[in-house]
Amino acid sequence: MTPEFDLIARHFNRPVRQATLGVGDDCALFPWGQEQEVAVSTDTLVSGVHFFPDAEPEALGHKALAVNLSDLAAMGAAPRYVTLALTLPEVNHEWLAAFARGLHRLADRYGVELIGGDTTRGPLSMTLTVIGAVNGATTLRRDRAQEGDEIWVSGQLGGAALALAHLQGRARLAPEAFSQAASRLHKPEPRIGLGMGLLGVAHAAIDVSDGLVADLGHICERSDLAAVIDWSMLPIAPVLLDQPEALQQSCALAGGDDYELCFTAPESASGRIAALDTELGLALHRVGAMRAPREDEPRVTVRDANGGVLALPQAGFDHFSKGAD
Amino acid sequence: MTPEFDLIARHFNRPVRQATLGVGDDCALFPWGQEQEVAVSTDTLVSGVHFFPDAEPEALGHKALAVNLSDLAAMGAAPRYVTLALTLPEVNHEWLAAFARGLHRLADRYGVELIGGDTTRGPLSMTLTVIGAVNGATTLRRDRAQEGDEIWVSGQLGGAALALAHLQGRARLAPEAFSQAASRLHKPEPRIGLGMGLLGVAHAAIDVSDGLVADLGHICERSDLAAVIDWSMLPIAPVLLDQPEALQQSCALAGGDDYELCFTAPESASGRIAALDTELGLALHRVGAMRAPREDEPRVTVRDANGGVLALPQAGFDHFSKGAD
Repeated sequence: MTPEFDLIARHFNRPVRQATLGVGDDCALFPWGQEQEVAVSTDTLVSGVHFFPDAEPEALGHKALAVNLSDLAAMGAAPRYVTLALTLPEVNHEWLAAFARGLHRLADRYGVELIGGDTTRGPLSMTLTVIGAVNGATTLRRDRAQEGDEIWVSGQLGGAALALAHLQGRARLAPEAFSQAASRLHKPEPRIGLGMGLLGVAHAAIDVSDGLVADLGHICERSDLAAVIDWSMLPIAPVLLDQPEALQQSCALAGGDDYELCFTAPESASGRIAALDTELGLALHRVGAMRAPREDEPRVTVRDANGGVLALPQAGFDHFSKGAD
Repeated sequence: MTPEFDLIARHFNRPVRQATLGVGDDCALFPWGQEQEVAVSTDTLVSGVHFFPDAEPEALGHKALAVNLSDLAAMGAAPRYVTLALTLPEVNHEWLAAFARGLHRLADRYGVELIGGDTTRGPLSMTLTVIGAVNGATTLRRDRAQEGDEIWVSGQLGGAALALAHLQGRARLAPEAFSQAASRLHKPEPRIGLGMGLLGVAHAAIDVSDGLVADLGHICERSDLAAVIDWSMLPIAPVLLDQPEALQQSCALAGGDDYELCFTAPESASGRIAALDTELGLALHRVGAMRAPREDEPRVTVRDANGGVLALPQAGFDHFSKGAD
């Protein structure tokens, strides 16, 4: 379990009365008047934990907003507003201008307005809260997967984790390969168009921020189902294919930071999903299926090419036990 | 100027199109459907800057929510939801349980629901984002003060700053006096009832988080007016009256953390304000008046008992130039 689930659920989660959906999904939802529901999500990036202290500020401005927008994408919400709480060890206007440039460029692409902020002195970190609009009837919640649903993944998996492995000395990449992988780590692309396109098509969705097995596991837990995925069907980032198999598996199954969407949909939706693939120019891959949970079997099973069961790499990403990611 | 204004305004503030009110007030406002507007505010507390590293976690849970609710109070908004982003150096369940207790107790008093969260590893800090509802027509904005308005302050001023001065060795208090002052520093009371009661009564409001002169200065700037207040009319915290005059002035005029409301209202509203004072059991004090700005005069002037002008202590609180507050 990721710490968000563990600590927030253990100490802060209580039943909500006014809200439609509280802690435990990509976003919280609450009704407001007769219109679409409000979707809210908050994420913190801490220097030395979520990014390297010397991270390029423009890319950081992009990433800080991107990882938050990714949570809206995973609900199918249309982004509207963002607040920024920025903690800085010192005032460096050049750094701030570059950070703002990266944030605003991405914000402008999705029509997101920065409406509030707070700056404080302290160790470098940033917390963004994004606010979006979604139609409550079709919201892509984690707890709406159904038995027999097909499991889909957008884009490619493992590139961001491979770049991190290189930076941490756990892998060796040629400069060109590293640059390709690093763009996934530093400039993730929130799948807003896909999330909104999946409304009324998919049953459940989550963004892959902590690794496919862990994140799909959250859909399984919340929907009380299990998932079986086929290793051979996973869209492994091409740059990863030259690497040892163990590294391929750990990056693609347990690596965070890709910010692709994983979603479940009935078989009957496959035509509409194929149309979305074409329309968005974003490859969508069917990778497995949801089934009833079985005693003594894990929530998520990965099958190898021979139909055997893959031993899973460390499931999930734990901010409290790992260094920079 | 406080850093919120300086840094956010300089690097992140751009005209808003969808929102009613962006950066620069206690809360941002945006419309949603036909109903009341949404008010949003975000504030970060950093260990060693906004609280002492060994702060009692239950009081800290209270204070983290209180300072955010105070921003809703300053707009006249009704609190609804809060998200919590908590960065912790290590997982200490006892600490977390106490922090959650303090936060939930205050949340329950105002019917606020915690709907989302994020926990990350790093130096201790917390960012809360509060969401409230307000009627756009009567919202207590900083830019709506009018010439001739009377200036009012709730409760008492300077107690929190005195407690801080004691903790930093700049003042010496007897144990009982310290305990009285410290409750203002550690357990500020958001003036939610007052803010909502002032809708349609007051023209403008702000919460006194950075010191009366600095915060009233924001109303002046945003409304393009000046303010004259009388030192003799200020509700100085009784515990401060034994202290040297210079300390009284710095605590009551430039001391942060009291989280009282400062508001402006026409003379004709004084009857309704007196009724609110009685209804809420919260003393409301008329302390001065708004007037047209004059060249070569500061936005905020404080008159002493003889009608002379007080030399002002350092105006405003700057997180980037001061230690723990």
